[in-house]
Amino acid sequence: MKIQPVKGTRDFYPSEMAVRNFIIDGWKKVSIRNGFEEYDSPILEHLAMFQIKSGDEIVEQLFSLKDRGGRDLALIPEITPSLARMVNQRINSLPKPIKWFSVPRLFRAERPQKGRLREFFQWNIDIIGTDDVLADSEIIFTTIDYLKYAGLKPDDVVVKISSRKLLAAVLKSLGIADKDLDAMYALLDKKARLKLDAFEQLLIEKVSDKKTSAKIIRFMETKNISEIKKIALNDEIEQALYELTTNQHYLNEMGVSDFCRFDAGIVRGLAYYTGIVFEVYAKGEQLRAICGGGRYDNLLKDFGGPEVPATGMGMGDCVLEILLREKALLDKQIKKPELDYFVARFGAVGEEPLKIIGKMRSMGYSANFSYKMGSLSGQLAEASAQNAKNCIIIGEEEIQKNEITIKNMQTGKQQTLPMDKFMDGLIRPK
Amino acid sequence: MKIQPVKGTRDFYPSEMAVRNFIIDGWKKVSIRNGFEEYDSPILEHLAMFQIKSGDEIVEQLFSLKDRGGRDLALIPEITPSLARMVNQRINSLPKPIKWFSVPRLFRAERPQKGRLREFFQWNIDIIGTDDVLADSEIIFTTIDYLKYAGLKPDDVVVKISSRKLLAAVLKSLGIADKDLDAMYALLDKKARLKLDAFEQLLIEKVSDKKTSAKIIRFMETKNISEIKKIALNDEIEQALYELTTNQHYLNEMGVSDFCRFDAGIVRGLAYYTGIVFEVYAKGEQLRAICGGGRYDNLLKDFGGPEVPATGMGMGDCVLEILLREKALLDKQIKKPELDYFVARFGAVGEEPLKIIGKMRSMGYSANFSYKMGSLSGQLAEASAQNAKNCIIIGEEEIQKNEITIKNMQTGKQQTLPMDKFMDGLIRPK
Repeated sequence: MKIQPVKGTRDFYPSEMAVRNFIIDGWKKVSIRNGFEEYDSPILEHLAMFQIKSGDEIVEQLFSLKDRGGRDLALIPEITPSLARMVNQRINSLPKPIKWFSVPRLFRAERPQKGRLREFFQWNIDIIGTDDVLADSEIIFTTIDYLKYAGLKPDDVVVKISSRKLLAAVLKSLGIADKDLDAMYALLDKKARLKLDAFEQLLIEKVSDKKTSAKIIRFMETKNISEIKKIALNDEIEQALYELTTNQHYLNEMGVSDFCRFDAGIVRGLAYYTGIVFEVYAKGEQLRAICGGGRYDNLLKDFGGPEVPATGMGMGDCVLEILLREKALLDKQIKKPELDYFVARFGAVGEEPLKIIGKMRSMGYSANFSYKMGSLSGQLAEASAQNAKNCIIIGEEEIQKNEITIKNMQTGKQQTLPMDKFMDGLIRPK
Repeated sequence: MKIQPVKGTRDFYPSEMAVRNFIIDGWKKVSIRNGFEEYDSPILEHLAMFQIKSGDEIVEQLFSLKDRGGRDLALIPEITPSLARMVNQRINSLPKPIKWFSVPRLFRAERPQKGRLREFFQWNIDIIGTDDVLADSEIIFTTIDYLKYAGLKPDDVVVKISSRKLLAAVLKSLGIADKDLDAMYALLDKKARLKLDAFEQLLIEKVSDKKTSAKIIRFMETKNISEIKKIALNDEIEQALYELTTNQHYLNEMGVSDFCRFDAGIVRGLAYYTGIVFEVYAKGEQLRAICGGGRYDNLLKDFGGPEVPATGMGMGDCVLEILLREKALLDKQIKKPELDYFVARFGAVGEEPLKIIGKMRSMGYSANFSYKMGSLSGQLAEASAQNAKNCIIIGEEEIQKNEITIKNMQTGKQQTLPMDKFMDGLIRPK
């Protein structure tokens, strides 16, 4: 019986696994150097958890199932609700602020297309327990620190930064009612994906007033913080602008402002954002955002906990991988795994090679051999294919004299040593 | 709204994550030094795949779900069927033998209990494409190489080895029909978990003959290869005994025979085994087997591919973690993460500390700071709590003089350096 893989999932053969490991190892390394600690949630959570705050799009795309007891479960489509649940469970004992990262495997029943799969990985970083703008800056800095680590430059990517608080204040100053804000965010978030005409049409239907819709569009197209004041101004707007300016200042001090720019068009679709928000885009590309994030000060409360300020970012692996491939940043950075020793054996040499291999591996060296036991040249070719640093050659002559021959695969130099001397000289690698 | 985690799943807070990473990093490291390459399958597979060969217990415990198109999917309960699917897809282009490892996250709708959870991790190693007994030995060696790596000794664990080929031949020589063998394996696999009386009763019902049942029990209690011949002997049995002896010899040469012993009672429940099989047990424990594996020469064919010999092993993280904890091997081996620099700032020092932190992180150092900006002693305590190697102290005096003070947190020694000199002296770590 021939079985096919499920649509929208990926098989990771060793070469694809090397790419996945390169991306995930980078995420982990950069998280750790920025002071984040790793956590993870289960993949199975109660379905009800995603009905609280995740928004319609995510709920529609849930992979859901029932357990034996008939309880409704879901495969997690994002980790933020689980994070809120976990932090709430230990809210009093965890030292704050909490700086955590995770690389969950997520599931969305989307129609598979370029950059969107049903099973994917997502890097998440979050700082919980401080309303300091510095935390927003640190999330953005860490995101950029990874992009730089992966080899991307300000010519390749741009971090567009705005503020949900600013957007809310501007919309309210233009007469949009509190109750209509969530629906408005979802609509405004679509602007970049629609033609201006079509977007304008939808917006006018919502606000029933051409002048207001023009002002909203003018606001969203603003790329300069100082110009906002010309559109609307009140205390809330001033507070939001102060936060944005402070954030710019911090990012400048931290040395990454060449990646960043203000863009009032950044909305983020999800309802739970409350402050600074941002998205990273590839320059000159039609790709979706590489990642996005922002401040979500009410989420823990929405999940039954106390009011705790929080800010975070999520970056999926699919769009990122496409971008890194386009910029030729994968092949040159993914190192082929090296083998410390390949043991070539030929003739009636018995099990002496197994002794050597067993000892090398137990000491911590990577060591391999050929099952085919063909010609020496064939085995040397196999050693090269496995990227061996050294090839140990054991033939009948070596066994008789109790010697081994060791060939440096880089220089091609060979030397013959007494077996005992070689084995005693093997020093445990770090 | 308060949400509970799903029963049988685990939340990995940073301290639990450290244990999981210790176990999984060890699996990966040992796999690589033994010459295995990493692969992974999706978590979502077609349900039908598990109905081919996985056996009733696994099918009953599947978490299954439907996709939008009404197709039946399952969360993988084991990775071997996916491995067979993936290898079959590229059977002609993959160089053989294939030596692959994986650490999938698996799902079984079991009743949660000690050592059995609904979501867990499992290390898998497989060698596909050779019928050489050396491949069976290499799988067993690699398993032991990990157990040793984790700090376990022959006093702690024992690898019990037998042969499905031997068991089949003995059963057939005692008159058991081919068609009854699969059911017999499932029954005999329960022997260790039942009282002898109860087991005998079940066995007599199956074979309808006290003499035969006594012979089967005598066979299963044999711990010495040479004694088997007294119970039954034919060409097939002799072939199986030769393989077992060869395997013993190889494991002896590779230096791990002190962990191994022959035990004809090792059956393995699953139907697909065809040759050498083994299980690892903690000595003197009532725990389930830590891991098990064996040769499965027909599986790829069962999945629609050609006839390709294969052998492998799977080790879950739950029972292993309990054992490592009991042997006190976790705390002493899991290193608390170190921080290269903690930057303490106090007074009106502006954003100078952010410059330093940004630069350190971008260069590859791990660096952190306090959001609270309390007293110096409070910040030094935070530096200690984060296991910082060095604490950079920046107060108003330092800023005025354009200096930094650096305190070595191990020795307690402090020195003051010009800011520029310190920053220029920072050499990118490896």
